[in-house]
Amino acid sequence: MEFAADILNTILTQFQKPTLAFLIGGMLLAAFNSKLEVPEPVYKFIVILLLLKVGLGAGISVREADFMSLAVPALGAAIAGVVIVLLGTVTLARLKGVSRVDGIATAGLFGAVSASTLAAGMAVLDGDGIAYEGFIGALYPFMDIAALVTAIVLARISVARREAAQMAVSGQGTMTMGGAGGGGKRTQISGVDGDMIKGILVDTFRSPAISALMLGLALGIFAKPDSVYQSFYEPLFRGLLSILMLIMGAEAWARISEMRKVAHAYIFYGIAGPLVHGMIGFGIGLAAHHMTGFSAGGVVLLSIMAASSSDISGPPTVRAALPEANPSAYIGASTGIGTPVAILSIPLFMALADMAIGF
Amino acid sequence: MEFAADILNTILTQFQKPTLAFLIGGMLLAAFNSKLEVPEPVYKFIVILLLLKVGLGAGISVREADFMSLAVPALGAAIAGVVIVLLGTVTLARLKGVSRVDGIATAGLFGAVSASTLAAGMAVLDGDGIAYEGFIGALYPFMDIAALVTAIVLARISVARREAAQMAVSGQGTMTMGGAGGGGKRTQISGVDGDMIKGILVDTFRSPAISALMLGLALGIFAKPDSVYQSFYEPLFRGLLSILMLIMGAEAWARISEMRKVAHAYIFYGIAGPLVHGMIGFGIGLAAHHMTGFSAGGVVLLSIMAASSSDISGPPTVRAALPEANPSAYIGASTGIGTPVAILSIPLFMALADMAIGF
Amino acid sequence: MEFAADILNTILTQFQKPTLAFLIGGMLLAAFNSKLEVPEPVYKFIVILLLLKVGLGAGISVREADFMSLAVPALGAAIAGVVIVLLGTVTLARLKGVSRVDGIATAGLFGAVSASTLAAGMAVLDGDGIAYEGFIGALYPFMDIAALVTAIVLARISVARREAAQMAVSGQGTMTMGGAGGGGKRTQISGVDGDMIKGILVDTFRSPAISALMLGLALGIFAKPDSVYQSFYEPLFRGLLSILMLIMGAEAWARISEMRKVAHAYIFYGIAGPLVHGMIGFGIGLAAHHMTGFSAGGVVLLSIMAASSSDISGPPTVRAALPEANPSAYIGASTGIGTPVAILSIPLFMALADMAIGF
Repeated sequence: MEFAADILNTILTQFQKPTLAFLIGGMLLAAFNSKLEVPEPVYKFIVILLLLKVGLGAGISVREADFMSLAVPALGAAIAGVVIVLLGTVTLARLKGVSRVDGIATAGLFGAVSASTLAAGMAVLDGDGIAYEGFIGALYPFMDIAALVTAIVLARISVARREAAQMAVSGQGTMTMGGAGGGGKRTQISGVDGDMIKGILVDTFRSPAISALMLGLALGIFAKPDSVYQSFYEPLFRGLLSILMLIMGAEAWARISEMRKVAHAYIFYGIAGPLVHGMIGFGIGLAAHHMTGFSAGGVVLLSIMAASSSDISGPPTVRAALPEANPSAYIGASTGIGTPVAILSIPLFMALADMAIGF
Repeated sequence: MEFAADILNTILTQFQKPTLAFLIGGMLLAAFNSKLEVPEPVYKFIVILLLLKVGLGAGISVREADFMSLAVPALGAAIAGVVIVLLGTVTLARLKGVSRVDGIATAGLFGAVSASTLAAGMAVLDGDGIAYEGFIGALYPFMDIAALVTAIVLARISVARREAAQMAVSGQGTMTMGGAGGGGKRTQISGVDGDMIKGILVDTFRSPAISALMLGLALGIFAKPDSVYQSFYEPLFRGLLSILMLIMGAEAWARISEMRKVAHAYIFYGIAGPLVHGMIGFGIGLAAHHMTGFSAGGVVLLSIMAASSSDISGPPTVRAALPEANPSAYIGASTGIGTPVAILSIPLFMALADMAIGF
Repeated sequence: MEFAADILNTILTQFQKPTLAFLIGGMLLAAFNSKLEVPEPVYKFIVILLLLKVGLGAGISVREADFMSLAVPALGAAIAGVVIVLLGTVTLARLKGVSRVDGIATAGLFGAVSASTLAAGMAVLDGDGIAYEGFIGALYPFMDIAALVTAIVLARISVARREAAQMAVSGQGTMTMGGAGGGGKRTQISGVDGDMIKGILVDTFRSPAISALMLGLALGIFAKPDSVYQSFYEPLFRGLLSILMLIMGAEAWARISEMRKVAHAYIFYGIAGPLVHGMIGFGIGLAAHHMTGFSAGGVVLLSIMAASSSDISGPPTVRAALPEANPSAYIGASTGIGTPVAILSIPLFMALADMAIGF
């Protein structure tokens, strides 16, 4: 009982902390139909600044990190991305009212990472003076890209199989199609090849979020941005994040209404997903802790990354790659439910890491 | 003579202070037809940040304030809002070329509060190291809402009376209208009832300005945003206010030209109103000083609140509730004349408070 | 050899500094077709803040500067602006594929000043703790306006001469044109008169960049904005500049493609121009150093101002005054090539000033 009480206590204390309070504030604003709106260009700029900050901080730390203490969590992050997508695909396929492609698209977004959620986790840890590896931001693309590539490859295979099946049926009926044509088509549709994966990778790296993060990372590693990082990016970080939380809270509330149009399965997945995925991240982080001394704060952030679902770079990537998937389903489930659940579960992972490792 | 010289001296010194100097700078830019423009989304964001700052600061202070020292100025603020609207309605009704509804709409805006003007007052006091109650921002909605509700109720009554009079006349002529229909209509037009006031209140709380302020207030009271307040909202406050003053100066200059289209009465009211209203606020503040020890800085800010006229949330509320009123009249008088006069009279109220109470 | 090695070493070290690294980062983003974009309103606001900062800083310093130490570099800056335009006009006229008016327009932009490039120079010097006169920003309009007025006057004279020549030819053929009409036309076309120069001056002062700078200058001189300058404008300066460098790098990369449409001469001028112009500024700065003790840091910034080409206020001024000139030529050469070359040559002028005077 003391165990549960401890967790509950940590969670309640955290809800008073600015990061989570602003998220709830944003939800209340939207629930109350307030006309208060942060203009779109300002929102985009705040996201760019946060991603540059996370990237720069990671880059500066990578310079001094030894290879193994970086490689183990990075590999773990990539594994978490793949596992979450596979698990989500299998789970959603069994739920009522979920089409195969919609399920894969949703699982892909939940496997990918939300920079804002990660930033919220960092701000909460900073606020409590809990240390974590500076290079954490560098783990982001490993999990994000692994998840998106897995989801898109899975979806293409699924589409190709269905088309092959349909063609087999229609082929038996008509018999007029030449062998060569059928063969050519088959080669094309089975096409989960190097080119496709390269295409996904290029698209992902060109997306605003990953671009900003990689740019920050590169500048952090190769230039010496420490002074501008400390005088500008660091101090503005928590303040801008509080504004971002307002926006995300309001956005989540607005998206929840879209959930009425899709199967209940998405609501279930949106609530349970972040918690299960966070536990996967927690387990991998714990393993990294025992292997390379990965910090308790690092384990919390890896859990949060795994619990988060992509809100900036993911949706357009999925929309472009899987035009047949229904955005109301995957964006509603991720931005409307998954993101607030993930942010609000930050205190849970803190309580778990405190008990399992100790800050 | 020394008395007047003291006031003049204080005023001249303040005109060199950044807040007022940037306002005058903005006017000069507009007078010179400069193409320099702060983009609209940035302007909106600055206003949101300032309102959140004022709300957060007030909320943090309300936590520690005792009930009476808060309730007395809050009640005073609401009284000031009502008195200013009633006085303005009576005064404007006697002036040439002012329609009844236009007069009420204008008086409503002058009774409501400008967050930017209040923020300017805070920045000027901060710059001179003059203390004031942290909860001052919490008085804003009391005056603002009292004024807007009074104005809209007055206007509805006025419209209802006129329509009733017209119907009586036309009713005598036609006699074909059924009694039931007339009765129904009468019930509707006399309708200054609970629903209407509830509607005005809901609209006011949903307006961006009051939403941002109330959100800041709630977060300040229930969450613990002290650290993000001190590291982000506080330090950015004066800088962003300097930009806002530029915008407001330019906007005022641009609006003055609209005054040519309306009666001279609005120019007279726009200049005299802020000074008279500020004195009403000053009197109420002085009473609160003697009752609960309300500070001299607080008296100055209550005067400035009373002197200010609403520039963000007021105009759309008035436009929605009183579509028959002429925006050139009430926005021209308030934004074009009232706001700069109120901001430029900040040093006057400081000089008065210094003499009456002493900083 | 040691001489060249020293310069090379300084240059390489500077490329790791944030200002230049962010510029190169922006180029890489554009080269990689990243979808990362800083929204237009944010870009405009950053430019306004930087110009206000440069103006305020200059104004605060002008208050304490003695006349001669200010007048000598100001006169030098104006001379540099005129010399660069005359030299550029003569040079470009001799190059293949450059029309007379396009050449003058391009030379005008290269003579005018880029606030961002100047700000980058200041940030680099600040980062290395190298002192310079605070009033440097006040030199900007002297060089900028001298260059733009010279270019537009040259272009008008050129157009007037050509038209006069054409009219002489056509006049011989037709003879139907009345003497009065011809005389009227002649008066108009020869019209490089006071009104025209006044028009250019008014347009230039109304342009956003010069307006913001002059406003900052005036507020710095007549108001006392020191506290808001130190608490807001100064601390945000380097951070916002890093964002601006990203935008300018990406913009330069995007503009380079336009260079394919115009003569190679522009590419040559875009690369050689900033270096030659910087040397002209360096020479004038060195003379000022010997006359009034102008600092080594000041000499570097005067060189950078001369090397820079106008990117904000210049292009619209030139477009409005010389509609017959081809924007692809002059904007491509200045924003696409001239600006990055000028920013990347900052370390060169630092190395030269260190050797010639010593920091």
